[in-house]
Amino acid sequence: MKAMSFDGKQMKYDENYPDPKPGESLVRVSLAGICGTDLEILDGYMQYNGVLGHEFVGIVEKSQNPDLVGKRVVGEINVGCNKCDSCKKGMQRHCPNRTVLGILKRDGAFAEFLSLPEENLHVIPDSITDEQAVFVEPLAAAFEIKEQVSLNSDWKVAVVGDGRLAQMICQVLKLSCPDVACFGRHETKLAHLEKFEIKTRIGITPSDSQSYDLVVEATGSNSGFADTMKLVKPRGTVILKSTIASRENLDLTPTVVNEITLIGSRCGLFKPAIDALVTGIVSVDSMIDSTFPLEKFTDAINHAKKPDTLKVFLKP
Amino acid sequence: MKAMSFDGKQMKYDENYPDPKPGESLVRVSLAGICGTDLEILDGYMQYNGVLGHEFVGIVEKSQNPDLVGKRVVGEINVGCNKCDSCKKGMQRHCPNRTVLGILKRDGAFAEFLSLPEENLHVIPDSITDEQAVFVEPLAAAFEIKEQVSLNSDWKVAVVGDGRLAQMICQVLKLSCPDVACFGRHETKLAHLEKFEIKTRIGITPSDSQSYDLVVEATGSNSGFADTMKLVKPRGTVILKSTIASRENLDLTPTVVNEITLIGSRCGLFKPAIDALVTGIVSVDSMIDSTFPLEKFTDAINHAKKPDTLKVFLKP
Ligand SMILES: [Zn+2]
Ligand SMILES: [Zn+2]
Ligand SMILES: [Zn+2]
Ligand SMILES: [Zn+2]
Repeated sequence: MKAMSFDGKQMKYDENYPDPKPGESLVRVSLAGICGTDLEILDGYMQYNGVLGHEFVGIVEKSQNPDLVGKRVVGEINVGCNKCDSCKKGMQRHCPNRTVLGILKRDGAFAEFLSLPEENLHVIPDSITDEQAVFVEPLAAAFEIKEQVSLNSDWKVAVVGDGRLAQMICQVLKLSCPDVACFGRHETKLAHLEKFEIKTRIGITPSDSQSYDLVVEATGSNSGFADTMKLVKPRGTVILKSTIASRENLDLTPTVVNEITLIGSRCGLFKPAIDALVTGIVSVDSMIDSTFPLEKFTDAINHAKKPDTLKVFLKP
Repeated sequence: MKAMSFDGKQMKYDENYPDPKPGESLVRVSLAGICGTDLEILDGYMQYNGVLGHEFVGIVEKSQNPDLVGKRVVGEINVGCNKCDSCKKGMQRHCPNRTVLGILKRDGAFAEFLSLPEENLHVIPDSITDEQAVFVEPLAAAFEIKEQVSLNSDWKVAVVGDGRLAQMICQVLKLSCPDVACFGRHETKLAHLEKFEIKTRIGITPSDSQSYDLVVEATGSNSGFADTMKLVKPRGTVILKSTIASRENLDLTPTVVNEITLIGSRCGLFKPAIDALVTGIVSVDSMIDSTFPLEKFTDAINHAKKPDTLKVFLKP
């Protein structure tokens, strides 16, 4: 099959990459999305080799479950061993032996085909476009915050970062908390948030300092962490959404002195994300940027890396 | 008055240090304790100048409140402005304008006298010795964990560190969770914990890895943070008790990937700590090390810095 594979240093387009092994449901990828994690993997973090890509929509070609064949699906990306304590508790996302689509020991979506266990797949209603469906995975990661923190509608909420994930987090938090502000660096990106009545800021003013009950770090940079710690109130809550690639000089002293709660947050369940797109309480259309054919992967990545770019898609 | 003052670089014994200014309750210090924070301040962290010491017991000499005069007291160390939002919510400990006894803009307990507002003082029952009373402040910091986390008796709990604070935390958590293990480096210190049926470990075995629901970091070192992150389960909780003096290469990636909750924890309320000493549900006697006269401060500090030393006292 056609696939873009990564050998730990470089991406390579391969017309004859091995097909996924049988034993799981086989999905023909219709459209895949490029995410910040993909860019980090390409920079050498995570020591991953193989086909990248973990945001996708596709058509099931083969499955043990005949009801799935021919259906349009998205897929949860973590696959547990189903034997360990985490898996027995339904926490496959935290299985120590897990594989993760396009991230850990499992070929991903930048290819003609991928495979996943049938229980990972979710059928997508016809009212959702392919582009919208690709957002289900990152939108689920945004909804995960609601599983982890009991949101109070009186809270002042800040989201640090103005990228794709940050924008979805702003919309999801706005469903529960009227007072949401996004701290970003790019006017064009921040402009998309205004129609959702989300406040936008470039730079932190003294009146913002230590004034937010909940702050979400969704930039992936160290300065993002520092800004986050400036914004959060004593005894407030911080959600860490990005694995912080560069990790020098992270100072946890303010966390102790101000008794901050820091909560790491990763993947979420797909159901609330799909429901939100169906009912329209969250809109991803303003984040659709451009679509490249899979062979033009290098152009697509270079475009995705530009500061003002939102979601870039690949079509196998 | 006699006092040991610190000019940011060196300690100096001064027979004629200025007495505390009037306006607050005046306390003649009977006994003071040396804490890890004092050693950090002496190493130049925190940019503090003045009289050190924040653990003490003493007799009230002067007070606006006549009932306090002549009483034996301990004192909460944070003094708020009583004007800001934090203070109005009763969170003087998080007042941005606060002073902190012997730590921030307020002379401390390594002196003949100190002053504090009367509302900070707690009368100590006669059944508690002076040595025991000095432990109220750090014991309150241990009880603070119970205010921040809803402890589940089924949890496997680990405390990383075997110093004075770590030992008190072990005892306090053991009140709620039968399964508590202390990960330390010093056999003589760990031996004190066995009579409380607290498990003790030197080094982390593979079976300890990612197996604790709650882990408390109470070492004050970076390796303590790394060990803590090795012990905690995915989706588990970490309490950060020590301001981590050296902060290079702290990696928060596992916090995100394993969705860990990190909670900074500092000072606590004195009431539960005093009650625990009165009822005897917590015992601090095994942590009493030695007492030095205030003038012998340098000897006392050198002794406190030795790895096997527990609580060292200064007598003005
Ligand atoms: Zn992603
Ligand atoms: Zn498993
Ligand atoms: Zn202390
Ligand atoms: Zn205040």
